[in-house]
Amino acid sequence: MSKQSHNDLPIGVFDSGVGGLTVLKAIREELPNENLVYLGDTARLPYGTKTPASIERYATQAAAKLQEQGIKLLVVACNTASAVALDALRTALAPLVVIGVVEPGATAAVDARPGGEHLVLATEATVRLGAYKTAILAQDPEATVREQACEMLVSLAEEGWSDGHIAQAIVRRYLDEADGAALDTIILGCTHFPLLKGVIQEVADDGVTIVDSASTTADVVRAALEAQDAIRGGDAPGYSRLLATDGATRFARVGGQFLGHDLSYSDVEVVDL
Amino acid sequence: MSKQSHNDLPIGVFDSGVGGLTVLKAIREELPNENLVYLGDTARLPYGTKTPASIERYATQAAAKLQEQGIKLLVVACNTASAVALDALRTALAPLVVIGVVEPGATAAVDARPGGEHLVLATEATVRLGAYKTAILAQDPEATVREQACEMLVSLAEEGWSDGHIAQAIVRRYLDEADGAALDTIILGCTHFPLLKGVIQEVADDGVTIVDSASTTADVVRAALEAQDAIRGGDAPGYSRLLATDGATRFARVGGQFLGHDLSYSDVEVVDL
Repeated sequence: MSKQSHNDLPIGVFDSGVGGLTVLKAIREELPNENLVYLGDTARLPYGTKTPASIERYATQAAAKLQEQGIKLLVVACNTASAVALDALRTALAPLVVIGVVEPGATAAVDARPGGEHLVLATEATVRLGAYKTAILAQDPEATVREQACEMLVSLAEEGWSDGHIAQAIVRRYLDEADGAALDTIILGCTHFPLLKGVIQEVADDGVTIVDSASTTADVVRAALEAQDAIRGGDAPGYSRLLATDGATRFARVGGQFLGHDLSYSDVEVVDL
Repeated sequence: MSKQSHNDLPIGVFDSGVGGLTVLKAIREELPNENLVYLGDTARLPYGTKTPASIERYATQAAAKLQEQGIKLLVVACNTASAVALDALRTALAPLVVIGVVEPGATAAVDARPGGEHLVLATEATVRLGAYKTAILAQDPEATVREQACEMLVSLAEEGWSDGHIAQAIVRRYLDEADGAALDTIILGCTHFPLLKGVIQEVADDGVTIVDSASTTADVVRAALEAQDAIRGGDAPGYSRLLATDGATRFARVGGQFLGHDLSYSDVEVVDL
């Protein structure tokens, strides 16, 4: 394959559902010329309450589907899959470069508040593995990291109830459970949670920085493409293809909230894994 | 097979997850001598947001797994699967008798308030198909039926936040969305919702009857066994086997709330479909 046609290949972005569209959006803003293909494994979501073995099997199948279509880099835009299955995906897809969201999220938190006190809001599976804690402490041994599972925030974001007193009460309860006094950052450790950034900021103390891994992940994607001389040339805007394993109508309805613009079900191709 | 050994076969109970344990519990109370085997398709839950084609495929695979183990009757203890896949399951498993929960729930509502105004709280998939509406109007053409999708109640029940101001606020919002003035009954059209019966009764007007299909389903199971002369004889208490397709630890933790007694992960066998 010529360099040009290799660089025209899309970046693959994979998530268990629609939440990873927040990462797709950040990559689109950072790299407007790149072609993108997104796969949401909506038939088998949520990953956050499944066992590591199932998550690894599902993530590997989904990633293989994207690799089969031809991609030049894979972004695992799902915190749970990044926490559980990143090594397995790198092994299965080598030599393809695979970028997760946990590492960039940890970097963003450490950069925002070196030696700080961090609270990670995430799914059960991500918390159980302590992936953010490991990643942050590797970069900043002075940091303190607490992690809080908050499944209700996932359905809150999907239901579109992203502000108002119910959202506030639920966020407050999780912050109380985490005993979140004197925090420096709150890390949005699930791609659904950027939708709730406003309400989390309202409930948290004024001095707390809300860290979202989407834009840092887009920076890492740019750096990885540059390192491989794989940036797509020219001025033509890139395309975005959206694939899902089930439910184009629901994907379009909920996904539109994450992308920040309306989607129709005909924008979504349903594929089988 | 002798009559005796046929009647010793367990009743199979199938759900997408742990919610159907409310039905298992009702059957255990109604029929203490019967052997029971429960399968929760936890690897692929929730069914409520999936497409009919996926729900039908998953339900058929799960039911086939139970049939393979030897059962004398199948209860589909999942409203979504009952609404979407009951005909397909009856065809696939014939001549096995297959009982869903929608029909018994509709009967219970009609019996409670003939000619009444009913509100069904259910998952997206159940509401989209209007299964309760069809079943109630077939029995009582004078009735009025409204249906409200309420996905947040599923995670509320799973999180164990079944009372308090958050639960009240969420229930109130759904009842407001459904414009639930002058109701006669609220039908718990998802097997997760019996856990929220208390808070729903608190929020609803005093005169509203909360209808739960679990106990009516147990009555229908008894009648079907009697009609086939298939009641298990003797005084020995029956066994209950619990199978899940993923996550024995989580199944035990959440499922214990539904059964009303503690479960350990060693009480749950993980099977592959």
